[in-house]
Amino acid sequence: MHQQAIDKPNTSPRHPDAQAGFARQLDQRITHHLSQLAPAPARLVEAARDAMSSGKRLRPYLLHLVAGDAADRDAVLDMAVALEMVHTASLIIDDLPSMDNALLRRGRPTTHARFGEATAILTAIGLLNHAVSIANGLPRMDAVQRGALVAILSGVMGWQGLVAGQELDLNGFSDADHTGDALDRITRINALKTGALLCAAVEAGAILGGRADGERSLLRRFGEDLGQAFQIADDLIDMLSDSTAIGKDVGKDAGKETYLAVFGAEEALRRCRALLASADAALVGAGLSPEPFRCMIDAIFTPMLDRVPAAQQQAGAAR
Amino acid sequence: MHQQAIDKPNTSPRHPDAQAGFARQLDQRITHHLSQLAPAPARLVEAARDAMSSGKRLRPYLLHLVAGDAADRDAVLDMAVALEMVHTASLIIDDLPSMDNALLRRGRPTTHARFGEATAILTAIGLLNHAVSIANGLPRMDAVQRGALVAILSGVMGWQGLVAGQELDLNGFSDADHTGDALDRITRINALKTGALLCAAVEAGAILGGRADGERSLLRRFGEDLGQAFQIADDLIDMLSDSTAIGKDVGKDAGKETYLAVFGAEEALRRCRALLASADAALVGAGLSPEPFRCMIDAIFTPMLDRVPAAQQQAGAAR
Repeated sequence: MHQQAIDKPNTSPRHPDAQAGFARQLDQRITHHLSQLAPAPARLVEAARDAMSSGKRLRPYLLHLVAGDAADRDAVLDMAVALEMVHTASLIIDDLPSMDNALLRRGRPTTHARFGEATAILTAIGLLNHAVSIANGLPRMDAVQRGALVAILSGVMGWQGLVAGQELDLNGFSDADHTGDALDRITRINALKTGALLCAAVEAGAILGGRADGERSLLRRFGEDLGQAFQIADDLIDMLSDSTAIGKDVGKDAGKETYLAVFGAEEALRRCRALLASADAALVGAGLSPEPFRCMIDAIFTPMLDRVPAAQQQAGAAR
Repeated sequence: MHQQAIDKPNTSPRHPDAQAGFARQLDQRITHHLSQLAPAPARLVEAARDAMSSGKRLRPYLLHLVAGDAADRDAVLDMAVALEMVHTASLIIDDLPSMDNALLRRGRPTTHARFGEATAILTAIGLLNHAVSIANGLPRMDAVQRGALVAILSGVMGWQGLVAGQELDLNGFSDADHTGDALDRITRINALKTGALLCAAVEAGAILGGRADGERSLLRRFGEDLGQAFQIADDLIDMLSDSTAIGKDVGKDAGKETYLAVFGAEEALRRCRALLASADAALVGAGLSPEPFRCMIDAIFTPMLDRVPAAQQQAGAAR
């Protein structure tokens, strides 16, 4: 079902408009929050502004969609800013010379390339802490809800989130990490590096939208599947594209154990689509109107997968 | 008054015993919290354990003293662990190659020297997030208090805390930072780099001990003065000692604008003692029994200032 959706051109202009409208509101709220940073050192504030100035705003929009229209609008926007700060911090960290050593991100110099490594690290930590401050300071919010939102943010970056994913991605598993086979290892790293933040967006949206526990567990599966699909698509692009086309350094995965490297492009494309279909089923099962989600997912995945012409052809021939 | 205390040998064995007893309890609680990190990558957990394995435990003990015996013992210990995690994370960050590039800390290899730069950065971020998790998850705690404790932690590392201090210390002030003279700049950096965490310890203790607002503002001044004194003493040691004697890399301040560099060793020593006296007065004004604080401060500053023989002699001759 969803497979069709990502293969077809989008015929409804309403959802892209809604997404663009939300992105504008989000950008305004990001500007507002960054203007509150003074008297922080001007250089740090400039680095934070630069790092936060662009992005697909996928996680904030996901949060917004899951929360629904009945949720507190200001709280949704504030929490969306907090999530985007965590996401941005994670990209700054990933790009560092001691990690992926990337000089280009979203078509522009990475934070350390422009502001130096020390300022980049400090900016990332500042953004992480500020995200917690935003969630912890949400007004008109039940204390239990606020605590749950803080827990999502501190968890997603932590030992069972992005930090763990990045460590395993860079330095691999040690014997004490009790890993299974290659698929287990790849799935775990993708869950930690990509799924964790998507799940955080979905879970924060579920809290703000007052969703029931049953819906939440399906929404969590939606986030997990979407994360796995996203990472596979990203790996395909990293292998098959050149950096000018996608605006970030590529070829960084050479030698890494990815789904693509282990199972090949055709199987990776098939798996990506199967995951998107599974994500879609979870969404429908949770009782959310799937159209705006599908539209957003199409907008991300169609151009990503369209950049995999050879693999796509193979997959088409194998169907 | 306090000047006498730090010049005299300590005659009361009770307080050092109490401090050592608290440190043992704290170490047990640190071990407990670190054992909760699994299934985090084993290498990250090992790096966290290594980084947290030693230290003066000054901030935790300050928190404990300010909280008093009537406070919830478990909450004090948990919050003390959280503060020590933030402190440890800040040291890991400060020592990085792109910052102070230090290979030795507390007589042992720094985290990046032993585990590599990427793991060091990830460990620091993991510790920061875990500290927030601990505060946010404190049981038997009023939600407002819990929120206040989370705010202390996210604030101390953030744009108006350690991250700002480190940025200014490394890259200096820009025109947009609206600084005053050298003394203003030095005081601000010291407040951000050293005072912020001592104030955080004192404020967390005040919250856990249910101290009144009037007491809290005096306790805050105590923390600020102690922070300024501590940084001046640390600068004196950095200039005058060798690394084997103090267990960390020295000479890192060469060329930096410190109180010592601008005003000289004699004035720095005088200022350090004046700040300790002011801190002591604030403590007495807040109505806390000053003896255990004095004992702790003596134990820190006497050996520090005793390592400044030339400067101390000059100061003695000038009296």
